Amino acid sequence: MRILIRGPAVLPRPEELIPRADVVIEGRRYEAVVPRGAASGEFDRVVDGEGCLLVPGLVNAHTHLAMTLVRGVSPDLPLGRWLEEEIWPRERKLTGKDVYWGTLLGAAEAIRSGTTAVVDMYFFMDEAAQALAESGLRGLLAYGIVAPSPDRVEEELRRGEAFAREWDGAAEGRIRTALAPHAPYTCLPAVWRQAVALAHELRVPLHTHLAETAEEVEQVRAEWKTTPAQWLEELGVFSVPVLAAHCVHVAEKDIEILAAHGATAVHCPTSNLRLGCGIAPVPAILAGGVNVALGTDGAASAGDLNMIEEMRLAALLAKAGDPTALPAREVVRLATAGGAAALGLGKELGTIEPGRRADGVLIGTEGPHFCPGHDPVADLVYAAQGGDVRAVFVDGRPLLLDGELQTLDEEKIAARCRQIARRVR
Amino acid sequence: MRILIRGPAVLPRPEELIPRADVVIEGRRYEAVVPRGAASGEFDRVVDGEGCLLVPGLVNAHTHLAMTLVRGVSPDLPLGRWLEEEIWPRERKLTGKDVYWGTLLGAAEAIRSGTTAVVDMYFFMDEAAQALAESGLRGLLAYGIVAPSPDRVEEELRRGEAFAREWDGAAEGRIRTALAPHAPYTCLPAVWRQAVALAHELRVPLHTHLAETAEEVEQVRAEWKTTPAQWLEELGVFSVPVLAAHCVHVAEKDIEILAAHGATAVHCPTSNLRLGCGIAPVPAILAGGVNVALGTDGAASAGDLNMIEEMRLAALLAKAGDPTALPAREVVRLATAGGAAALGLGKELGTIEPGRRADGVLIGTEGPHFCPGHDPVADLVYAAQGGDVRAVFVDGRPLLLDGELQTLDEEKIAARCRQIARRVR
Repeated sequence: MRILIRGPAVLPRPEELIPRADVVIEGRRYEAVVPRGAASGEFDRVVDGEGCLLVPGLVNAHTHLAMTLVRGVSPDLPLGRWLEEEIWPRERKLTGKDVYWGTLLGAAEAIRSGTTAVVDMYFFMDEAAQALAESGLRGLLAYGIVAPSPDRVEEELRRGEAFAREWDGAAEGRIRTALAPHAPYTCLPAVWRQAVALAHELRVPLHTHLAETAEEVEQVRAEWKTTPAQWLEELGVFSVPVLAAHCVHVAEKDIEILAAHGATAVHCPTSNLRLGCGIAPVPAILAGGVNVALGTDGAASAGDLNMIEEMRLAALLAKAGDPTALPAREVVRLATAGGAAALGLGKELGTIEPGRRADGVLIGTEGPHFCPGHDPVADLVYAAQGGDVRAVFVDGRPLLLDGELQTLDEEKIAARCRQIARRVR
Repeated sequence: MRILIRGPAVLPRPEELIPRADVVIEGRRYEAVVPRGAASGEFDRVVDGEGCLLVPGLVNAHTHLAMTLVRGVSPDLPLGRWLEEEIWPRERKLTGKDVYWGTLLGAAEAIRSGTTAVVDMYFFMDEAAQALAESGLRGLLAYGIVAPSPDRVEEELRRGEAFAREWDGAAEGRIRTALAPHAPYTCLPAVWRQAVALAHELRVPLHTHLAETAEEVEQVRAEWKTTPAQWLEELGVFSVPVLAAHCVHVAEKDIEILAAHGATAVHCPTSNLRLGCGIAPVPAILAGGVNVALGTDGAASAGDLNMIEEMRLAALLAKAGDPTALPAREVVRLATAGGAAALGLGKELGTIEPGRRADGVLIGTEGPHFCPGHDPVADLVYAAQGGDVRAVFVDGRPLLLDGELQTLDEEKIAARCRQIARRVR
């Protein structure tokens, strides 16, 4: 399949803007980015990109897609009560089939707002992976291992390993797997040690929650006399690639550890605010040389799975005391190349150039909120909406065209998810 | 004109949700909110509201609409350089006609994202008022008086007074006026004293910027030995209704002053973050009994004029350390009834009930980000997008229907604004 995207402005990478170009996709990769009118040859499909901006695919580097099923449940409760009385009782009622539909719903929403790849951790992951494969999204998936007591260690590790083995490389390579011990305070040291050994054996990364709340930091200090990051370092965790979600409460030494080992900190600002966790010190983490990606977290805490919103909030929060912090171009880099690096695909994804995987997002910029267009990158971060996304490509395959989902039956998915929501109420 | 909005969920006020209703508008007011199918009589127009949520009109209680013309200019510069090298030089080149077109652009964007009323302060306000009248929006408008030196006092006051006299009650009463000394640090005491006397005479409120930056607080303390709010109280400013934009750096005593005099604090969280001003202590301001409304500020600092975004950010920021702070229903109240009270129309606007002015916003909720719909108010705050707005009514008149602007020629406005942007570059 050879596709021509005709006439959009193109942001091959955040610091370079081509006002008007033709972009050619051949198979799974970008073939050419040339001046408008200069693309030649035969095309199986021509996509009208006039009045649009083409950007590299947005990577949602930390989420739990199926938590769409509990979106909007009892906002504004204290965190403990919210989890114990509202979220967990509903989650305990979920079946594998429910997670399949919830993941499809999350995928539909993610595609509609410009996401091309997700890093997902949940349970019933076979069903989640099946849904992701059908959606056409790219994913790094893992079963979330929760084993705070010795009796659960082997069973949880077994599930994590089985999933990681079975699905790595599935969906023509779009699905890769990870091992995901849930967090320092929910997994015994034995889990971490075995997960690290397994990750080496399977050559997969680790995905976890790290330093999300002040309570976690206190708890780890009380038990292990150190910080969550330093505790994981002692356990050898950083000997494999790590995606560490949140990193809200990290000290200078923690940042040094993440940087020294090439780990990724996944910034999830909406969820961190909504749950009262605080604000991650992203400028300091970046200054420390850590790769930073952005994520929404699950829709239960974030409200949506909209990476354009996440870019805006990340930029704004960093600026609370300094308007020069985290410039618009830098935040776009985090959401694209930063996410690509987190996936271990820094040389395959994250920019629009010949030879790279053709993951991209075409954003309609005709709305009044993009006018007069002094700086399309500033407008992308500070004015764009998820609903402005017109087309989405992953590995050259259109998942959204002219605002229509190409791989998913949205009405059917929504109807099933509403049924599930009523049942688990 | 009698209009039926058929079948939407209705949020008459934040704490009450009617899952499915018929809403009748007769002339400028709501006539009835009845169960679906129960509306009777003849209708001039029937609006399909199935799958939608009808909410009271959103009030943008602090903005400078024509600053759309400098949207996106040099983001990420230090504030002083940004103003002095980028924004002010462009603003100095603007003509009255430019402000007319820039205000139309801002109005189009505001309507598209669910705003029904704006509180606007700028220059060339005759042209801005003309544009606002054409748009059909409701507005409280004022000429921004800047007079830091004695030679400018009389001329600036004269302009402010002339505008306030000429336009109050225009556009069938949709336009009301205010007097707007720009800020404590840009207006001499003589300005404030005369503006207060004039406000009493004309029976109009005062609109100003208050405690926006730490520098302002320092400057006022150095010169007048007190805080901005206390300084204005000494000048008698709070003897008339006051809309105080920002209130980022307010002390307990300042909050007491605002509350005691029935002033409104207008929270503009996006602009406050973007310009590095900080985060207004909204929960404390509310706890102190102050009326709080929300505003975007101008698009130059906010990036857009999207009140749905502003609701979300206000809710999230308040929760950084406490997930129970500023609940979703409360933030909707600030954006609707809080804004109505700021306009002096607390008994006319802000809720959907028979006899009230028919300002309302119909939001399409079929998108995956509204599914499964456990709590439509949480979804409105945490998931909705400006582009979900399907219809907007002001005084019963449709300004947007089926996603189409009814009063403004969007393409012509955008073309003119792009021309202006090129000229002032």
